[in-house]
Amino acid sequence: MHIRNAASDEWVRAYGASVLPILPCGSFPEAPFGAMWAELQPGERSNANNHHETETLFFVEGTGIAIVDGESREVSPGDVVCVEPFQAHSVQNTGTDKLRYLAVYWEDARAFANATDGAREEGAPSYILVTATPPTVNGELHLGHIAGPYLAGDVYRRYEAMRGRTVFYQSGSDENQSYVVTKGAQKGWSPVETARWFGDRVELALQRLDIRMDVYNRPATSPHHTEFTREFFLRLYRQGALVAKRAPALHCERCDRYLFEAHVAGLCPHCGSGSDGCACEECARLNACVDLTAPRCKHCDGPTTEREVERLYFPLSRYETLIREFHRSVAMSPHVSALCAQALEEGLPDIAVSHVSDWGIPVPVSGFEGQVIYVWMEMCAGYLAATQHVADGGAIERWECVWKNSGARIVQFFGFDNAYFHALLFPALWKAYDPEIRLPSAFVTNEFYLLEGQKFSSSREHAIWAADFAASQPRDAIRFYLGLDRPEHMRTSFSVPQYQETVRSELFGTWVPWLNSLGERVAAEFAGRAPATGTYTPGQRAFLGALLVRVRRVEEALRPETFSLAVVAEELCGLVRSARRFGTGERYLAGVTELSAEHRTAVALELLAAKALAMTAAPLMPDLAAQVWSALGFGDGGPTRWESVPAFVPAGQRVHGLRSVAISAPADAVGTDAVADAIAPSRQFVLEVTT
Amino acid sequence: MHIRNAASDEWVRAYGASVLPILPCGSFPEAPFGAMWAELQPGERSNANNHHETETLFFVEGTGIAIVDGESREVSPGDVVCVEPFQAHSVQNTGTDKLRYLAVYWEDARAFANATDGAREEGAPSYILVTATPPTVNGELHLGHIAGPYLAGDVYRRYEAMRGRTVFYQSGSDENQSYVVTKGAQKGWSPVETARWFGDRVELALQRLDIRMDVYNRPATSPHHTEFTREFFLRLYRQGALVAKRAPALHCERCDRYLFEAHVAGLCPHCGSGSDGCACEECARLNACVDLTAPRCKHCDGPTTEREVERLYFPLSRYETLIREFHRSVAMSPHVSALCAQALEEGLPDIAVSHVSDWGIPVPVSGFEGQVIYVWMEMCAGYLAATQHVADGGAIERWECVWKNSGARIVQFFGFDNAYFHALLFPALWKAYDPEIRLPSAFVTNEFYLLEGQKFSSSREHAIWAADFAASQPRDAIRFYLGLDRPEHMRTSFSVPQYQETVRSELFGTWVPWLNSLGERVAAEFAGRAPATGTYTPGQRAFLGALLVRVRRVEEALRPETFSLAVVAEELCGLVRSARRFGTGERYLAGVTELSAEHRTAVALELLAAKALAMTAAPLMPDLAAQVWSALGFGDGGPTRWESVPAFVPAGQRVHGLRSVAISAPADAVGTDAVADAIAPSRQFVLEVTT
Repeated sequence: MHIRNAASDEWVRAYGASVLPILPCGSFPEAPFGAMWAELQPGERSNANNHHETETLFFVEGTGIAIVDGESREVSPGDVVCVEPFQAHSVQNTGTDKLRYLAVYWEDARAFANATDGAREEGAPSYILVTATPPTVNGELHLGHIAGPYLAGDVYRRYEAMRGRTVFYQSGSDENQSYVVTKGAQKGWSPVETARWFGDRVELALQRLDIRMDVYNRPATSPHHTEFTREFFLRLYRQGALVAKRAPALHCERCDRYLFEAHVAGLCPHCGSGSDGCACEECARLNACVDLTAPRCKHCDGPTTEREVERLYFPLSRYETLIREFHRSVAMSPHVSALCAQALEEGLPDIAVSHVSDWGIPVPVSGFEGQVIYVWMEMCAGYLAATQHVADGGAIERWECVWKNSGARIVQFFGFDNAYFHALLFPALWKAYDPEIRLPSAFVTNEFYLLEGQKFSSSREHAIWAADFAASQPRDAIRFYLGLDRPEHMRTSFSVPQYQETVRSELFGTWVPWLNSLGERVAAEFAGRAPATGTYTPGQRAFLGALLVRVRRVEEALRPETFSLAVVAEELCGLVRSARRFGTGERYLAGVTELSAEHRTAVALELLAAKALAMTAAPLMPDLAAQVWSALGFGDGGPTRWESVPAFVPAGQRVHGLRSVAISAPADAVGTDAVADAIAPSRQFVLEVTT
Repeated sequence: MHIRNAASDEWVRAYGASVLPILPCGSFPEAPFGAMWAELQPGERSNANNHHETETLFFVEGTGIAIVDGESREVSPGDVVCVEPFQAHSVQNTGTDKLRYLAVYWEDARAFANATDGAREEGAPSYILVTATPPTVNGELHLGHIAGPYLAGDVYRRYEAMRGRTVFYQSGSDENQSYVVTKGAQKGWSPVETARWFGDRVELALQRLDIRMDVYNRPATSPHHTEFTREFFLRLYRQGALVAKRAPALHCERCDRYLFEAHVAGLCPHCGSGSDGCACEECARLNACVDLTAPRCKHCDGPTTEREVERLYFPLSRYETLIREFHRSVAMSPHVSALCAQALEEGLPDIAVSHVSDWGIPVPVSGFEGQVIYVWMEMCAGYLAATQHVADGGAIERWECVWKNSGARIVQFFGFDNAYFHALLFPALWKAYDPEIRLPSAFVTNEFYLLEGQKFSSSREHAIWAADFAASQPRDAIRFYLGLDRPEHMRTSFSVPQYQETVRSELFGTWVPWLNSLGERVAAEFAGRAPATGTYTPGQRAFLGALLVRVRRVEEALRPETFSLAVVAEELCGLVRSARRFGTGERYLAGVTELSAEHRTAVALELLAAKALAMTAAPLMPDLAAQVWSALGFGDGGPTRWESVPAFVPAGQRVHGLRSVAISAPADAVGTDAVADAIAPSRQFVLEVTT
């Protein structure tokens, strides 16, 4: 027991009254509020005071008036007055005996934010910008793409939004890639048609999986993209960051074409794996095309020759110090760290930022006609252009509000094969463009996701297209499984039977039956309303403790520094498993009069677990979360606020809706799409996921 | 201004006081706490309440005492009392006027996290006595028995020993059971032969599964058992705790035999299930045999008659107060709590403690010749006798050193079907025998384990005998799987394919490959010696934090109050899974000079995880733990000390032995036993568990 005796404590004069501060008190447990006794003698009036705390006055002795922002009310023992932030308030003793009250005050983040209109808690970023690498639109998004940056960025966005942050999530089509040209050639489509068609399919896939972006930037129709890229390039050129250099480039005599990126294949000069021009998908390191071993033209499979061409180069080594310093602050995976360390040790190259081609954004510098801007430099500028689209929507004034704001935070999601660009090239380009640009604070990366042991391949049609899959499957089931199986630190492999088995046994076999059974029991035992907790048994205390640990683990796994959807999904499964086991054991308390207080606690705890599930699942599985949230009587729209320590479902709240929680594909996710079956006909997965 | 007038509000009765809830209040701003006024009239005392919220009481009127966890303090206006989570608290008005206080309560994440982890015993006990119900030797131990009390008691014993406690684990043969007679009759063996043969098989099974008891008491050869039982019975009789009563007993005219326990079957008068005499296996409640519905003699399947017999009875209802008080202190499962509450509500019976029979310990009271002592009373005395065997070994002076020692702790493991005896009958018998005996502090119970959906049955030979199974399988694999699948709060079912699949995918498919790979890497990268930690990345810090949480969760699951082998096994699997994932991700740091400090940390952390695995697995899987321990360079014999925060493997220690960690049946567990194949020939499980 902690006790303070008023008689032996020191009263002091403050605020025009005699006061005895009570809380905080060194020897007491920490409370989420401060408290003091106050006394006024007959006729005395306390100073009119206005502060950012919310305050409640409990009158216990004597009579008087409370005055709040000019409004007066009589008060006597037992009366309670509440004062909002910044309201001027005072108390006057109008009686003949002393007047005593207890003042309890606290900082309410939200009340206070409302009152100050925009003042935010300290340390919290004003904006969080989440980016996912713009996909090359030479194919649809397959499940490997979704399991990579796109789903993860969406989950992170939702989590930060629940924590009250203003988050923007952006990506877009990487249309000017040479791969769009080669894919179009296969299909007999123009690059423009190819980019448009696949761009539509990408957007459809995102929509069907409820991956919500604030901006999906499509260069062909963007009012900013091309302009930003030209200006970015020009400024770098004018500031001397780009240097012209005459050097050999690969050429195919038969096709009369300069070969780079998609146009050429050989062996990577660094790791020896099969590699295209400019970058190796396997080791993520860059090449100069002419250094590929045994290069072949990918159009005619013929041999290559070399021709001298004058191009513009970005000498990356000039920025070595800046890059090293950046790496000390940005959070990244061991694989990316290792790549960076290796690249710095080997020495940073001069990177060609113009290529001879007719597909792309023309180099805006005279003397380089017939050349286009290197797509990865375009992407670097495109990230800024995409943010300008956010500004167009009115959420911010202009792109600099995020990119040059020390209070904003940028988190980038991408596959390991793009790590060289994001971790080494872009930071240097951005800083060369404008030293005031703030670099990202974290990278969240992934390895390749395989399909039944082999790389997903658009060209070999060894793929499951995300838009099709989402048309036949509940989107939460896909999101759940891809989260669980995500190739976070190593390659993992999607398999249809494993997907089916996992979704069946976990979601249909464990989650839904537990939630339904809980709803049935609350309906039968508590008329469908949440009970108040009563007495706790040691087992119930332990369950509560373990539940709080789980919530903390999910939080940890949603921070960019330690991001892991696999951990999130595993913890959700663990939460359900332990809650179900707990519920089964505690069921024996039902109907035993003498144990009704323990029984109430048991069911209140199970409902708390269901609420914690809805909250912690909301970023990954928004549909199920919204259903459970509504079934628990919290209304529509799903959980919107993250509670690090979830509060109990209020006693008396109607929660019987849990009986009918189910997993099914929401109508808007199924849709009808004539082309759905036309894609990847060699891989028709007919999946039946039922109970 | 928001105001509430106490005068116009509705006071209600709650918690034994008049209360007026104040906050939350719809029209007020949201506060981070709840509040209510409470009033007690002179002499009134509020109910002792214990809940998860922290609570502060502000006294404003009248005088009284506050009682928190048994501590009383006087309070008067202005005093403030703070109560931590789960402290039982009440207020009493000791004055002549009304007493009024304001109660303010809130959920404090940290305070209740502390209170939940910290629901720990104060002061370490000098001795811990672990008991497992003596098995009836009318059959061998099957896997259901092992998954019940026997393995669990062994795991708990090993855990407490690692924590430095002196632990004794005892059980023994329940030889004088009527079931031994009926089984012998089937086999054509005398009861003595039957008890001896099955007793040997039970000991063999325990030995093969490395379930180590300090005492396995066999009444036929014990120098104490029969003497203790007789003395126990006589003292109760002499002290007037037993009363003679003439009452009807079941009799079979055809067999000329009094029918009780194994000799009779009918329907339970409480739950209607099929039940033998004296106790129902299904609902665990007792019967008087004559109250069975449709009783039949189990020898001839004939009808029964009733004959008046004078027997001795133990009137349990005399001890109701004592039993109720005991139930407030002993930790038990909700199912046992419910049984106790139900039994107390229905009224406690007079229990016949002598039966007409020639198998058992003769009643040592004249006038009751031809009667034997009720076997469950014998077991109650036998628990004390078994402890006297511990004393014979020299570890303690005599049985009272444990049973009458306030510093000792008794934890009993038994199946739910034996709960009535342990939770209601034995406490009363022990206290009637000697009020100085200290009662158990915790019960760890289990439900029935099924074999492929049906009850294990010795008579139908629907069983897998533990001794046979352990002869063909690695004992750690059996212990692991039975732990994972243990019927802790609900019936679970053993299935051979599930056992094989789980052992293959977890132990052979995940644990061993991870440990081997770690050993390979330490051999290749650090010449087989543990590196010292260097610099930490955020991901590495998070891994360390999560590892420590896991160790705490295993600890929690090994405490009797929250005992769960399923949680232990799941946490071990989770530890391996997360360590393997971590190791795979961090592997990229190897060989990168600039990141060697981070690389050392990564490998040191993985080795710490392997050490934590050895330690946390040691109670459940002693063989594997000992192998890993030795492979980590800590020498033979396995981990002997529990570290709540495991220390790193000392830098420089040779750990390359991890490369050859494997799971196989150690030679001494296989043995050769000519009878092994003769048992349960209808259930030959040929299991191949290989990688």
